[in-house]
Amino acid sequence: MSSLTSIVGGIYDQLDAGDVPVMELPLRSKKNIEFDTQHSVWTYGDLRTTRTSKTVQGAQMMLRTIYTADFINEMIREGKSSTLREMYYISEGWEHAKFNSQDESNLLAEDLEIVSRCMREDFKLRPEESGAHVYGNVDVSTMTKKGMKKFNCMDDVAETGFAVPYNVERENFEIGGTDAKFVMAIETGGMFARLIENGFPERHGAILVHLSGQPARSTRRLIKRLNEEKGLPVTVFTDGDPWSFRIFASVAYGAIKTAHISEYLATPTAQFIGITASDILNYKLPTDKLSDKDIGALTAELSDPRFSNDEFWVNEIQAMKEMKEKSEQQALAKYGLDFVTDSYLPEKLGDMGVL
Amino acid sequence: MSSLTSIVGGIYDQLDAGDVPVMELPLRSKKNIEFDTQHSVWTYGDLRTTRTSKTVQGAQMMLRTIYTADFINEMIREGKSSTLREMYYISEGWEHAKFNSQDESNLLAEDLEIVSRCMREDFKLRPEESGAHVYGNVDVSTMTKKGMKKFNCMDDVAETGFAVPYNVERENFEIGGTDAKFVMAIETGGMFARLIENGFPERHGAILVHLSGQPARSTRRLIKRLNEEKGLPVTVFTDGDPWSFRIFASVAYGAIKTAHISEYLATPTAQFIGITASDILNYKLPTDKLSDKDIGALTAELSDPRFSNDEFWVNEIQAMKEMKEKSEQQALAKYGLDFVTDSYLPEKLGDMGVL
Repeated sequence: MSSLTSIVGGIYDQLDAGDVPVMELPLRSKKNIEFDTQHSVWTYGDLRTTRTSKTVQGAQMMLRTIYTADFINEMIREGKSSTLREMYYISEGWEHAKFNSQDESNLLAEDLEIVSRCMREDFKLRPEESGAHVYGNVDVSTMTKKGMKKFNCMDDVAETGFAVPYNVERENFEIGGTDAKFVMAIETGGMFARLIENGFPERHGAILVHLSGQPARSTRRLIKRLNEEKGLPVTVFTDGDPWSFRIFASVAYGAIKTAHISEYLATPTAQFIGITASDILNYKLPTDKLSDKDIGALTAELSDPRFSNDEFWVNEIQAMKEMKEKSEQQALAKYGLDFVTDSYLPEKLGDMGVL
Repeated sequence: MSSLTSIVGGIYDQLDAGDVPVMELPLRSKKNIEFDTQHSVWTYGDLRTTRTSKTVQGAQMMLRTIYTADFINEMIREGKSSTLREMYYISEGWEHAKFNSQDESNLLAEDLEIVSRCMREDFKLRPEESGAHVYGNVDVSTMTKKGMKKFNCMDDVAETGFAVPYNVERENFEIGGTDAKFVMAIETGGMFARLIENGFPERHGAILVHLSGQPARSTRRLIKRLNEEKGLPVTVFTDGDPWSFRIFASVAYGAIKTAHISEYLATPTAQFIGITASDILNYKLPTDKLSDKDIGALTAELSDPRFSNDEFWVNEIQAMKEMKEKSEQQALAKYGLDFVTDSYLPEKLGDMGVL
């Protein structure tokens, strides 16, 4: 709250001194986003931009900033939260400060994150749905209306796992004891259920995290915390196509959209299990043809610093471009329902030194 | 298992007698699907079709039927389950019986449901993801590897609610005690979270079910069971657009695709809360313009018996077509985060006689 108050206070002081208020923030365009090769994450560069109220548009942005800060302030005081969509609709009552689209209000929430050095979760703003689930022998405590509640993510949940809340920051979410040996993030719900049914987490000491497609911030944050606080190696198991490679990259290196909080979200030591182009060949997996869009995505990845600095990825991406085929993690079922847990994963995890 | 065995046995006996085997099943095209106005659900008519092995294609279908029955048989014996996608990949090992696409294997699973009068869940086949969550004061017991586990869907869960498993049939899922007064099925995750945060279930004795878009079979089945076994009225709260009207219709009257099991899935007494075209006017909600696709969908609904026999729906659909606008349930946030629970829902539920 004090951080937000000081932003709004800054605008007030400028007005009070008879100045046209301005606000400075890092330039949020692609040219100011750098791949920090030392820490292997995306970060902002030094370019800065100044928002002035000299134009109608600029003044409107300033007004929106103040209204939004006020709304967040009110939520914090009342112990409430809201979806990003609700905030957009709330602005219907803000007259000249009304947002024209949800893209505008989402961007402003990110601007406030950058200027205040807080996180959207601190502002009590959340996405529509998270959908991620965790299954494995780890205790977690999560905030509810009735105070903190403790769950073991294996014993106190059904086989669907523990549903991850949107806010997994320390004051709302604690990670307790665990005897697990590693974390495995999994792209599809079908594979997540397969590993649970086959008893994989119990047998190998795995904590499974269902990514549910491109992972939400809370999912990536939770993986990061398991890695850092519990010292657990992180592995990522996805389909074998260019879009899944990007899912891995966002877990490991962060995403351009959230470059300002990569240090909170990215797990640079995360390792990719597969499905790789080599897997498609080695295991003779059923495949689908790459579409033109797929090929374009692979080409783009070859100039993406998250992949292009890494020999493993350059080889795999080029191999997939040449074979012109992709495959899914569930394609391993070609060899029966147990193949993935009896052969594929133990072999892969052994090679990686995790098992 | 005996039901599947008798289907395969029938084919065997025909071969044994030197006949070219045939299989009879209800015609599954649109012309054999009728709206049963008495029970207000979709059902199959009397038209039947005969599948013969005289053609290569027919023989292949018969072979697939036998392989699939064998696979299901094996899963039941071993206490396993599989996703529909896994079954499709499993068929890679079936040589001539291999499916060409997942549509084919999904359809065959439905054919087997019809012929055997069992349900896909009995066959241990499940969709990729269910995603539905429940929040409210009701005890449920669900099957896990360690036996039946009991949860209270308010006290034993985080604020994300209880994740519904894919199989909510009696031997796997029991509904225990509840003091709830009604069930409310909700389209969006944002609104589901809003009602939980605002304490709506506790204050009004509601069991909330998050539909997560077009609801999965298990979600509809659970709603049906809560309605039937606990005598709870069911209400449905969605966005105000033609696609959301169809979500309501699939909860209340069933869907063409699952016409053979409408009696298990549909809750004909379910009532629609909104958002209606009248709500958009009465509450002056923020709107978006209807697209051409939206208008086409509304027009189609006027000849869909699930809507066209009902004066309420005919009026609402025509009103929306005339105003050419749609709205979302979260648009109620225009009046603040509490408006939906303090004003909108109590007014609506009072008018409907639920509160």
